[in-house]
Amino acid sequence: MTATTVSSDLYTQVQHFYARQMQALDNGRIEEYAATFTKDGSFQHSPGIDPVLGRDNILAELRSFLKKYDDDPTQRRHYFNQMILDPQEDGSLRSTVYALIIRVRPNEQPEVWPSTVVHDVIDLTDGEILLRSRSVSYDQLV
Amino acid sequence: MTATTVSSDLYTQVQHFYARQMQALDNGRIEEYAATFTKDGSFQHSPGIDPVLGRDNILAELRSFLKKYDDDPTQRRHYFNQMILDPQEDGSLRSTVYALIIRVRPNEQPEVWPSTVVHDVIDLTDGEILLRSRSVSYDQLV
Amino acid sequence: MTATTVSSDLYTQVQHFYARQMQALDNGRIEEYAATFTKDGSFQHSPGIDPVLGRDNILAELRSFLKKYDDDPTQRRHYFNQMILDPQEDGSLRSTVYALIIRVRPNEQPEVWPSTVVHDVIDLTDGEILLRSRSVSYDQLV
Repeated sequence: MTATTVSSDLYTQVQHFYARQMQALDNGRIEEYAATFTKDGSFQHSPGIDPVLGRDNILAELRSFLKKYDDDPTQRRHYFNQMILDPQEDGSLRSTVYALIIRVRPNEQPEVWPSTVVHDVIDLTDGEILLRSRSVSYDQLV
Repeated sequence: MTATTVSSDLYTQVQHFYARQMQALDNGRIEEYAATFTKDGSFQHSPGIDPVLGRDNILAELRSFLKKYDDDPTQRRHYFNQMILDPQEDGSLRSTVYALIIRVRPNEQPEVWPSTVVHDVIDLTDGEILLRSRSVSYDQLV
Repeated sequence: MTATTVSSDLYTQVQHFYARQMQALDNGRIEEYAATFTKDGSFQHSPGIDPVLGRDNILAELRSFLKKYDDDPTQRRHYFNQMILDPQEDGSLRSTVYALIIRVRPNEQPEVWPSTVVHDVIDLTDGEILLRSRSVSYDQLV
């Protein structure tokens, strides 16, 4: 079932990388989030939209996406789980990980929305973990 | 609090094993799921039913269980958390892990159902991780 | 993004420590939970209350807090996620980790309440993992 697989050390490092990355995003530190991509990294945060390329465009896209919460104060939390890492021939890693987003609004029960799967390609050059690309698929059946 | 405990390397390998196993199940690749059990493995997916023995029976049981979704298209996601691994005297591992199932249906909010605890016995012979047995308890109080 | 960081071995050990600690709490073994703090450990389980100091006081506080479930049978499950560990100059670790609490009551859907962030200081003296302090912030905006 496993074939070639990553070391436990690298698996754990990626967990820690995701923790820092997603806490940065959820706490609104979007420059820090954008810096987790390679310079020419690709980011598609929702299905059916075009990916944006490069940190500046990622940052602009996030600013635009998060604008909808301007009049709707919401604390979001991204829960990651069941991470599969597959080494690619070019030395990168393919990461496939569940992501459940919890939305918390004033005086409401926390809401589970949406349930997604995150598809990353992780760059490991120079001993650093960075995302070459991230795309997010939604579970919602339509 | 810990006494004898597993290595971090093994702990991480089991996390990765679960990720591959449960993504296979949630994506409907049930042959792949059945293959994560030993040949004579035991599987009891819900309380109060008899366990089924062996990969063929596990596969048949899953086919039967999943039939109820034939007319009710549902994407399920199993979130595992707080995994405890206890080495047994015979070289196997006892694993006790929370499992929260998210059910996603068309045009509905994702639903948390049920909240469970998974009780596994993990076989490590031949350097491979396989389940000797799995039983699932439900948190729902009745 | 990382600067000084912990080893993968230690990161995994803390995951396992949390699993044992929180399964103890969720299963009502609160003496075992209290024993995961240092002798003079500090615990503030909810915002806006004073922290309690020392294992005996932690135990008393938990007994008092859990009394509210005496007439309201509830199985709680604490899901931890996105754990960040930052080494401190004094050899301790600062841990910042998401915690989602699932509450399960008879004949009700599991409820997500509340969504929190756990802030721990972890003591590593004598090769043992213990909490010097824990405080919990709630996401709920008010």
